[in-house]
Amino acid sequence: MDSSEHKVDKENHQHPSVNFMEPRGFGTKLKSEIRETLFPDDPFRQIQNEEKPLRQFVKGIQYFIPIFDWLPKYNLKLLRYDLLAGLTITSLAIPQGISYAKLANIPPINGLYSSFIPPIIYAVMGSSRHMAVGTIAAASLLIYQTISSAVRPEDNPTLYLHLVMTATFITGIFQAALGFLRLGILVDFFSHSTITGFMQGTAVILCLQQLKGVFGLKHFSSKTDIVSVVEAIWHNRHEIRWETTVLGLIFLGFLQFTRYLKQRKPKLFWVSAIAPLTTVIIGGLFTYLIKGQKYGIQIVGNLDRGLNPISIQHLNFESQYLPTVLKTGIITGILSLAEGIAIGRNFAVLENTPHDGNKEMVAFGLMNMFGSFTSCYLTSGPFSKTAVNYNAGCKTAMSNLVQAVLMALTLIFLAPLFKYTPLFALSAIIISAMIGLMDYHAIVHFFKVDKFDFMICMAAFLGVIFVAMDVGLVLSILLGLLRALLYVARPATCKLGKLPNSSLYRDMEQYPFSTEIPGVLIIQLGSPIYFANSNYVKERIMRYIRSEQSSDVDGSIVDFVILDLSGVTSIDMTAIEGLLELRRVLEKNGMQTLIVNPRMDVMEKLMLSHFVDKVGKETFHLTLDDAVAASQFALRKSRANDAGSSSSGTD
Amino acid sequence: MDSSEHKVDKENHQHPSVNFMEPRGFGTKLKSEIRETLFPDDPFRQIQNEEKPLRQFVKGIQYFIPIFDWLPKYNLKLLRYDLLAGLTITSLAIPQGISYAKLANIPPINGLYSSFIPPIIYAVMGSSRHMAVGTIAAASLLIYQTISSAVRPEDNPTLYLHLVMTATFITGIFQAALGFLRLGILVDFFSHSTITGFMQGTAVILCLQQLKGVFGLKHFSSKTDIVSVVEAIWHNRHEIRWETTVLGLIFLGFLQFTRYLKQRKPKLFWVSAIAPLTTVIIGGLFTYLIKGQKYGIQIVGNLDRGLNPISIQHLNFESQYLPTVLKTGIITGILSLAEGIAIGRNFAVLENTPHDGNKEMVAFGLMNMFGSFTSCYLTSGPFSKTAVNYNAGCKTAMSNLVQAVLMALTLIFLAPLFKYTPLFALSAIIISAMIGLMDYHAIVHFFKVDKFDFMICMAAFLGVIFVAMDVGLVLSILLGLLRALLYVARPATCKLGKLPNSSLYRDMEQYPFSTEIPGVLIIQLGSPIYFANSNYVKERIMRYIRSEQSSDVDGSIVDFVILDLSGVTSIDMTAIEGLLELRRVLEKNGMQTLIVNPRMDVMEKLMLSHFVDKVGKETFHLTLDDAVAASQFALRKSRANDAGSSSSGTD
Repeated sequence: MDSSEHKVDKENHQHPSVNFMEPRGFGTKLKSEIRETLFPDDPFRQIQNEEKPLRQFVKGIQYFIPIFDWLPKYNLKLLRYDLLAGLTITSLAIPQGISYAKLANIPPINGLYSSFIPPIIYAVMGSSRHMAVGTIAAASLLIYQTISSAVRPEDNPTLYLHLVMTATFITGIFQAALGFLRLGILVDFFSHSTITGFMQGTAVILCLQQLKGVFGLKHFSSKTDIVSVVEAIWHNRHEIRWETTVLGLIFLGFLQFTRYLKQRKPKLFWVSAIAPLTTVIIGGLFTYLIKGQKYGIQIVGNLDRGLNPISIQHLNFESQYLPTVLKTGIITGILSLAEGIAIGRNFAVLENTPHDGNKEMVAFGLMNMFGSFTSCYLTSGPFSKTAVNYNAGCKTAMSNLVQAVLMALTLIFLAPLFKYTPLFALSAIIISAMIGLMDYHAIVHFFKVDKFDFMICMAAFLGVIFVAMDVGLVLSILLGLLRALLYVARPATCKLGKLPNSSLYRDMEQYPFSTEIPGVLIIQLGSPIYFANSNYVKERIMRYIRSEQSSDVDGSIVDFVILDLSGVTSIDMTAIEGLLELRRVLEKNGMQTLIVNPRMDVMEKLMLSHFVDKVGKETFHLTLDDAVAASQFALRKSRANDAGSSSSGTD
Repeated sequence: MDSSEHKVDKENHQHPSVNFMEPRGFGTKLKSEIRETLFPDDPFRQIQNEEKPLRQFVKGIQYFIPIFDWLPKYNLKLLRYDLLAGLTITSLAIPQGISYAKLANIPPINGLYSSFIPPIIYAVMGSSRHMAVGTIAAASLLIYQTISSAVRPEDNPTLYLHLVMTATFITGIFQAALGFLRLGILVDFFSHSTITGFMQGTAVILCLQQLKGVFGLKHFSSKTDIVSVVEAIWHNRHEIRWETTVLGLIFLGFLQFTRYLKQRKPKLFWVSAIAPLTTVIIGGLFTYLIKGQKYGIQIVGNLDRGLNPISIQHLNFESQYLPTVLKTGIITGILSLAEGIAIGRNFAVLENTPHDGNKEMVAFGLMNMFGSFTSCYLTSGPFSKTAVNYNAGCKTAMSNLVQAVLMALTLIFLAPLFKYTPLFALSAIIISAMIGLMDYHAIVHFFKVDKFDFMICMAAFLGVIFVAMDVGLVLSILLGLLRALLYVARPATCKLGKLPNSSLYRDMEQYPFSTEIPGVLIIQLGSPIYFANSNYVKERIMRYIRSEQSSDVDGSIVDFVILDLSGVTSIDMTAIEGLLELRRVLEKNGMQTLIVNPRMDVMEKLMLSHFVDKVGKETFHLTLDDAVAASQFALRKSRANDAGSSSSGTD
């Protein structure tokens, strides 16, 4: 389409012109917007597609309670895989349950309880086939940090435990509510750089915390930042026992060796999977045989036989503790959701199954609610366990049920056996797990690609290491939000030039061989234009014009300013008024404004606000070529007028 | 360009292909980004354009201290206009100064002081030619509301006054700092709907406050919300004096009549401009002659002769009051800035002069700082006064100097004359001014065009009327920020179809007669894609694909998914990983992904993150037509292969 052959007469256009359509009704638009915001994955389409009401009902039940979806299709062949996977993750659940409970400073038996009831709930309500639920390290430490500001576990262990379970209940309510209200959108606001920085920082401080167990210290710091920990170690260095240190390092070496083995021969992943349980057993045997307590080796201590006692009567909502409990519940809730959802999504993508974050939130919420009624504390979907579950070949959520059954057996029969497990063995297990999580490559990658992402990551990382976990998290999230706002406050604009041998227009900075059209300035706008950036956009356009006019090139007079709105996804009243103002100012300076290709939403607003009436339909063009052609036509006409008479200017 | 003739071989393309260029260095990009964010109006270009160093220096001085810019060009002709304008605005400054000071519950003389020093500072440092500075109603009430929560003016008027001046000092520092740090961007975040709703709500509650003066009540509510005020009036109805009510209504009628006159005959604007001063004088005369105090008519009270006393020694930074003072200073600072900047911008657009918000902030800041040293309180650029200044034909900021001189004369000679001004006259003046500001058309217009804007406006309006001024303001700003975040969390996407008789692709919903290409799904993305919306974008694309596949149309198999990135202005790491994941999932399902026309910023990130290496350069195309042609070529090739052998599938 050679532009010189274009006529302004729209009937002769070979393609259609801009569509000035009737705006959609408010009801239609609102319904569409709510659907996009809250139900982007259109979950009910399946149900609606069914024809018979009975089938619809069944589909509905299957949607809300996933176990009714996969259990009818279950068979012995799947069970084989799930049994093996369940066995493997239980061997991980025992050491993780005991050591993470110690991180949270609650009795280790509660860590084991937390791998009994919650997996059952998840198997019923959860929709991920690979998720293995259990306790998580970072949140356990965060629970200790936050609740100990109100009640210290050394002072009043019973009250402390009750508050922890109350916080778990709050978490459950919060997560289930988020899921029901389809507010999964909130978790999206955790940028990948925030999560990476936070997890890396947490891995570091968790390792630091384990130095207490490895060195066999009795006194330590209740703070987690690196300076306090180093100070505490220095201050109590007379308590360091070479025995626990050496033994701890031996176990650590063993665990790291099994990891190395897994990397070299992936088929041997199960070795590193059962290594923690092996460490626990060997450590316990060793300590029992040499009567380690005589040497001052600290052990886990008594673990009562029996299943989870009911604990709903212990939930403590007293107003003096309630603020702390609420804060703990909500922060750990968001944190554990972010991790659990991210991991579920990860594996869903690998297996190409749809992943409904909101449904998962409901499952996690119910897990924690019922968990808090049965002496469990915060659970989610820890990465290590889920990865082991996946590698062990699990097929459905049955692996969680297997884990629950095996854990029940352990609680009934085997629990007391873990009494002699030395703390340095648990520390070695945690340190090994954390080293496995450390990944400086990711952080370097951020630095190379996107410096702002790197800053967000570092804010979390350094905040967690040098101040506190919640400070690092909040700081990083605020930076992420700031970035989101800056994106919209300074939308990208660029000047377009025509590509040779085509009717295409591209950014002149990106395609330097594109050329300008004399007398015409084409500016491409992007992103929504609204109050937060409307003034900026106007100033920027004025600056483009001033640059043009002050350049030394001949014919630097700007007669037409063409605004390409293809990239503008929405507009508000402030922006519309801004456009009107801009047009007025340009007109006063002898420049005409043309608008190209507004999107549907934008067009509707422009019509409703009578902008179209005020500027006239001839201002709008479907393509840049049309607009340029219209401008050339008008310029030729005005030059013809000038030649015909001695007066100047058509405007 | 007929797509069937396209070859994939790039050398035969008639137009260039995608530019895989070297990313710009970090330094270049950072400099460019800082410049866009903080200096969008490129203020130093003028200075840099000068060649001689002396001229550069002079230009620099003129930039920073505007009086050196316009004063040398001053002449007697301009002075004529400015004298008249200055006289007119002084006649407004006297009643406004007295009544707004009463709104803030400080001695009226301070209101008059505030039209002496601040206008001088503004004339030196300010860059708007029409701005007339003085006290403002809304902020005066807000000052009273906020500071009286710490110290009530009835209990300790001296301390109260000192705290008000300290708050003014804080405001000055804050505004000047914002200006120096070029953080004018913050004021942009006040959406027009927020300001409208807030101003309308404030107009209503200010009228309500005046009922105390009109009814002649002695006791009133310290709260401003409508319920408290109505309750207070009812509770104290026995105090209502018919005399003040009748007289107040008479004055109000007079003022409204002069406004009506202005609307009918715009040349008579000066009548409504001097009406308030006339009201003050007549009211004072009347009260003096009938010895109104005997009838219980409340008057302004003693006004001392003399210029502003130095008050820097009275600034009170005691820690018990500091939080309140800081809060007042900052909130009123932002509020007065929003109004002053908006008004300056308004008139600058009318006159087509550039407007530098940041410079204006510095001017306002210095006004308030030096004001607080000289017994003034918060000043800004009130709309009414500036409008009068403009209508009276002011030409430069000299009108402010004239105002200052006339006010000085008033303070030295005439101040005690205003002692007998009755409060009901001041109330009538304020009510009349507020009625002039009320504009329900604007709110109705919001409702028609943009329901979210309407909500934001209503939040401010109802919040101010039913709760408190700061609550209404904060609520509205939060809604605005929420909107900003929602814009980016749910970016608009659409499916593109080809327009008949062209190589153009447009939104199929907007242009329903566009057609799809068999086997190809074209999706247009918009706005920045990053962590907050990356998952949504992926889900949305998957949903488009599922919709396609489940439709009944023949050939609903999707072989190619083409993503049009022309509208995507930037991208971050999370989004890049999301795209990689998406491509992986699509590949597993037998679909190929093509990417069209990425912008410069996006292309750089895609290259730095090795996305381009991972997906291959052939994934990228410059135009949709190219991408469609490439897909058709590949499809024909694979069908040829299928025909040639019995095996199926090329992927």
